[in-house]
Amino acid sequence: MRDLIDQLRAGDTYGQLDRLGWEKLLSPFVLTPQRRRELGISCDVDPATEGRLRSFYQAVAAGIEKATGLVTGYLLDLSHEGFGRVTVFTGRLVVVSEVLRDAHRFGFDSIDHLAGRGEALVGAAAALVRAHPEVARDDS
Amino acid sequence: MRDLIDQLRAGDTYGQLDRLGWEKLLSPFVLTPQRRRELGISCDVDPATEGRLRSFYQAVAAGIEKATGLVTGYLLDLSHEGFGRVTVFTGRLVVVSEVLRDAHRFGFDSIDHLAGRGEALVGAAAALVRAHPEVARDDS
Repeated sequence: MRDLIDQLRAGDTYGQLDRLGWEKLLSPFVLTPQRRRELGISCDVDPATEGRLRSFYQAVAAGIEKATGLVTGYLLDLSHEGFGRVTVFTGRLVVVSEVLRDAHRFGFDSIDHLAGRGEALVGAAAALVRAHPEVARDDS
Repeated sequence: MRDLIDQLRAGDTYGQLDRLGWEKLLSPFVLTPQRRRELGISCDVDPATEGRLRSFYQAVAAGIEKATGLVTGYLLDLSHEGFGRVTVFTGRLVVVSEVLRDAHRFGFDSIDHLAGRGEALVGAAAALVRAHPEVARDDS
């Protein structure tokens, strides 16, 4: 979560978010079932939603860098219809690979859910790096 | 090259390309130095150019599937400014990873150059799969 907050503050060129506390900052990531239903999926994915998707996975990538000491890269390949895939890799090892559906409605039930999901992704990635250290360090 | 031609024909829902020979079909992939200079880079990447980029790397992915017998996935993450990255992976192994610059001007000096580049990517990917068979088959 600290990594996600860092990501959001880093993207805030004019400091407009400085006065917001972390709960306010993360509130757009939380979608109640009702808000979720209200979101249409007939248009392109909203740029703000895509921005939140990128922030979340960049924060996961940053968390993996801290947990493993290795440099990561990430890719998000999203169609206009909200389908796609995100991967985070280190060296030649794919440490996160998720298929995205319904990206229009990207969000979490609660801040706890968000934090838990991020921690689970970082933990699983660190375990993969321990299992395949040679591939994770292959920067060819 | 056969894989690339297959990709192009597969995307041709209405059979408008059926009457074209393979040389005509591949000609948009060839950029002479003069055509390259004429292309502006001030706008978003042209959808047709992005389509050619995707066709090329999908054809590489198809070639890797034939060479290794393994299923591949690919991601293209491209900014509007023409920068980005493309990866092809099999299991948890990244078998192609290229940074893209100047995607507005994606193209090859000649058909031979295109074919050579595709073959080199497939060959390098197959060697990586042989070096790390366990990771390449890890579909967790």
